[in-house]
Parts: sequence; C-alpha cells; structure tokens
Amino acid sequence: MTTRLSEDDLIARYFAPLAGPGGLGLYDDVAVMTPPEDAELVLTVDALVGGVHFFTDDPPDAIARKSLRVNLSDLAAKGAEPAGFLLALALPPDWTDDWLAAFARGLGDDVAAFRFPLLGGDTVRTPGPLTLSVTALGFVPEGDMVPRTGVEPGDRIYVSGTIGDAALGLALRLGKPEDAGWIAGLPREAADFLRSRYLEPQPRLGLRKVLRAYANGGMDVSDGLVGDLSKMLRVSDCAADVDFGRLPLSPAARDALAHAPHLLRTIATGGDDYEIIASVPERQCAAFEAGARAAGIAVTQIGVAREGRGLALHDANDAPLDFGKGSFSHF
Amino acid sequence: MTTRLSEDDLIARYFAPLAGPGGLGLYDDVAVMTPPEDAELVLTVDALVGGVHFFTDDPPDAIARKSLRVNLSDLAAKGAEPAGFLLALALPPDWTDDWLAAFARGLGDDVAAFRFPLLGGDTVRTPGPLTLSVTALGFVPEGDMVPRTGVEPGDRIYVSGTIGDAALGLALRLGKPEDAGWIAGLPREAADFLRSRYLEPQPRLGLRKVLRAYANGGMDVSDGLVGDLSKMLRVSDCAADVDFGRLPLSPAARDALAHAPHLLRTIATGGDDYEIIASVPERQCAAFEAGARAAGIAVTQIGVAREGRGLALHDANDAPLDFGKGSFSHF
Repeated sequence: MTTRLSEDDLIARYFAPLAGPGGLGLYDDVAVMTPPEDAELVLTVDALVGGVHFFTDDPPDAIARKSLRVNLSDLAAKGAEPAGFLLALALPPDWTDDWLAAFARGLGDDVAAFRFPLLGGDTVRTPGPLTLSVTALGFVPEGDMVPRTGVEPGDRIYVSGTIGDAALGLALRLGKPEDAGWIAGLPREAADFLRSRYLEPQPRLGLRKVLRAYANGGMDVSDGLVGDLSKMLRVSDCAADVDFGRLPLSPAARDALAHAPHLLRTIATGGDDYEIIASVPERQCAAFEAGARAAGIAVTQIGVAREGRGLALHDANDAPLDFGKGSFSHF
Repeated sequence: MTTRLSEDDLIARYFAPLAGPGGLGLYDDVAVMTPPEDAELVLTVDALVGGVHFFTDDPPDAIARKSLRVNLSDLAAKGAEPAGFLLALALPPDWTDDWLAAFARGLGDDVAAFRFPLLGGDTVRTPGPLTLSVTALGFVPEGDMVPRTGVEPGDRIYVSGTIGDAALGLALRLGKPEDAGWIAGLPREAADFLRSRYLEPQPRLGLRKVLRAYANGGMDVSDGLVGDLSKMLRVSDCAADVDFGRLPLSPAARDALAHAPHLLRTIATGGDDYEIIASVPERQCAAFEAGARAAGIAVTQIGVAREGRGLALHDANDAPLDFGKGSFSHF
C-alpha cells in the first residue's frame, strides 16, 4: 500500500523530530550553526544508490544507518567531531509509509547514538531507484585535521578493526556460483557476522582524538585496503612496504580464507570496510596504540612508509603479492 | 559513444579545476574551511532528478548552472554570503565524456561568476536518471540570518524580479494541447524569454546585504508564490493581504496572460521562480527599496502582513482570488 503524504507532512512527521537546534525545525530554507571558536569546518558528501551501494530490499533502518555511518567514517578518519548532516532523499515510485517510518527510525537511532543531528534536507521523487545523499559536517581544532596527504617516510601504517569482512559479507549476499563452496562450509554465526559487517559499518569515531594527536595521515577504507592505501601513498608522494601476514582478520574471515585461499584478493581489495588507515611517526606509535586501546578500538601495524612510489605487499613468508589495481569501484 | 573514465580520472579532469583551496584538490576524504570570525554557517541542500526537476535533454551546462543557482537562491534569501558547495552526482548508464565535459563547463561558469568554489563531491553511477544533489554553504554575520519565521504584523511584503515566467516557460516546454492557443499567439522573443527563465534561474544574491539590513523575514520562491508565501506566513504565525494587481509580471508573461487569463493560476502557483519574498517593517521600506535599486534588482511591494492566519489575495478591483493549495510540488 502506498500512502501519499505531502513533502511537508512527511518532513513534519518523520524528519523534524531528528533535527537539532541548527535545523530550525526543518521549516526554513537553510540550517544555521555557530562554529566553535578556533575550529575548522570539515565537510564530506556520499551518495548511495539502491542496487549499487545497497540492496533495495535491505531493511530500511539499516540503509539509513549505513548512509550516516559511511560519512561518520570519513569524519573519524580526519579526526573530526561530528556536528550534523543534511540529507537529500530521492524516493522511488513504490515508497510506502511503513518503509519511510522504518527508515526514519534507523536515522533516529544513529542521530542519538552518535549525537549527530539532522540539520536539513530535501525530499524528492525519482522514477529511478532510492537515492540518498548525505552531507556530513564536523569540526576540528584549527590545524588538527588529519590529511590523506600526510604520510611521511618512516611512518608506521596502521589499520583499525579487521579487514575484508564486509567484502566477504557482500559475496555471501550475492551468492555467486564460484563462491558456493566456501559459503557452504561457513558456520552460520560466521556468515551472520560477515553479513552484518557489510550491512552495518562501524565508524571508528573513538579514534578521532588519537588520530588528531598522533597521526600524520589518515583515510577511511571504503573502496578496498590495497586501492585506498595506494591512493593515500600516491597523494602523499610516498611508498610503503606492507606485510599481509599482519593483516587483521576476523575469525569469520580466517574461516572463509581457510576454505578458499583465493579470497585473500577479496579481503584485500573489496570495499565497504569503513576501517581507518593511519600513518603514525615511529616515536608516537606507543602513545597511538595506548590511546586506541583506551578507546576500545583495535589497531594493527601492518607496514612502514618509505621514500619512493607504490605499495609493495608481501605475505608472511616474505613472498611478494600483487592484486593489480586493488580497488573496488562502485562507479 | 560512451567513454569510461575511472572516478578518479573523471574527478581530476573535470572537477578538480573547480575546487577552491578548501577543496584540497578533491583528493582528500573531506573539504576543510576556516569560518570567518563571528559568522554563522548557513547550509542548504537541493536534489534535482532528471525528468522531474529538469528535462534530461536540457543542455548539460544549463543543468549544471541550475543545480547551483537553486541553492544560491536559498542563500540569497537568507542574506548569506556564498562560500562553496559539495556535489553528489549520480550518472546514468548512458553518460558520455562530452556530456560531462559540458556539464563541468557549466559548473565552472557559475563557480567563477558567483565565486562559489567546489569543495567536495561524490560521483557514482545509477541505473536511474541523472540525479544531482548540491549542498551549499554560506556565512552570515552572527545573528543576521533572515529567517523564514520572521514576518511581523505590519511588515510590507515584497517580491523580487517578476513572477510566473518560469512556470510559463515550463508550460511552453511541455506544450500540452490545452496550452496550444496562447502558445501559438506568443511572439518568438517572449517564448524564448520564458523558456530561459525556466532553464536558467537568476539567484538574487545582489539583495543579500539589504535583506540582512532591513528584512524581518525572507524566503525564496521555488514552489510557487502563493504556496511559498502561505508557508512563510504559517511558520511566522501571521496573515497577509496581497494585491495581485501589483504582482510584478514580465512583458512576456503579460502577453501570455492577455491571450489566456486562466494563466494567472499558473503564474501565481507554478514553481521555479527563484525570486525572493521579503517582509520589511514599514519604517525600513524606503531604505530597502533604495538598497535594492542600488543593487540593480527590482523589488515590488505586493501586500501587508497582519495578525491572524492565512493569505488573503485580491485582484486590482479588490475582488478576492483563490488558488486552492497554491503550490507546485515536485514531490
């Protein structure tokens, strides 16, 4: 059943309750916010398209949370304090009141969990798939933003959490014939874990202060570790040696990899990790690790930056690895 | 012919040249900006969908300019200084290199014309129509934002420019059988003018300083004068009497109206004007008008706000007019 609220009614019912003070109840043309003193404004936008970035039959509350979290992950990687977001929502012809209610509930969960108010938005219809565009706003103390370009030779390369879970979760969702073997061998809980890692990214906001304090460079891993790290090294004009023997893997990913060693490529180059890559000067590593531990977020040193160009990967036996372009592209 | 640049190549070729210093060359996860001292940040987002908000065969440079101008119009209505924008661009399967080059050229025109740099973006593909979401960022001196809620009883209601041209331009584009009569009677130049008013809105940024200085309330007219003014009065808890005999009409709109008096409804309730409604205290009217004149933008007093609820419209002979809901909705 398709209900047909007007845009104003829909905003009043579902979105106005999520607005922070800067959102002016969502009845003005704009949102207004007074920046904290001596702060820099940090802005990012991510678009998500149904059938491209998520499955259109994913639970609406999970789609909502993912749309916020991919942006919160960008803010976290820069050491930024989340301040709020704007949402452009293009609804397909078959949207229903129930769908939108569940979507707004999901947004509301993360608005509360991350103290990340809705500042403004635009709701339109589309003859195409559901399309979401979230613009996230954050602040950092002046000069403290952790740039993607900041890697220095000698820096230790860290990643947060575990890598590859979401890409395996996506492979599980897609269930292609060539993956039938390892999928069949995977325990139920491992499969559930991997699926949830695809569906519900965990932005590593707990790292934002230690990143600001100790990291030279930072980036979130959204398009695959190898591709994203290569990109970060390129814009920093650095090379790095990375030991894949140290790659942090979840028990579920280890399980899948034991069944199907070729999944190392999926793990290394698949997207949707939403973990953080940080480059940290050697003298700051102990403090960085202690700070991450205090924040309850695992970080693992996987390599070292050096002068030069390119990313050199080797396995635990020091044999070189090559994943080609190494990046998943939604584009 | 469809070319297939990677997202990174596409950003480097077309969008990086449009980035201001805050855009970090578009190779970081975020944009960074230091807010001016004692300024408030003003943010707005608008989504435009092909086939809904524009014709997919409109010139790509015009689509690009319109996507910026609808947002610049929001900033203008709030008295804000434009600071930059983020663009989320979902490209349909049939995008071509030529299309994108022309689109980027159109963006570049307005980036230069309005000193409105690209701060960041996201480019994705969609199986649906071209979808654009622009988040615009501006600043106002603290406390000077002109709110939609600011109308006070006794305020004079002004509109900028002329009303209804874009809605008539859209009717011309659609060419419905019931419009064939007046369309056939319209001189070529009048038709061209109306079409251009639909295709290329003119954000009234020249009014931003006089709005800040003299207006109690401000809003841009995007969904039709009657509907938008009604909305502004509702959130301001005010009523108003408006004299449609004073409605500023272009010679082309007068021409169309002379052929087809029923077009008054289209003029009054059609969308896409991107003019400004301002409510100005009586004692400030002379200064407001003088300031607008100095800025080279016509403003016309069309009515007076009073206590109560609702918008009372009458024609030049004082006969009441009623256009029902009075608002065009893209939704």
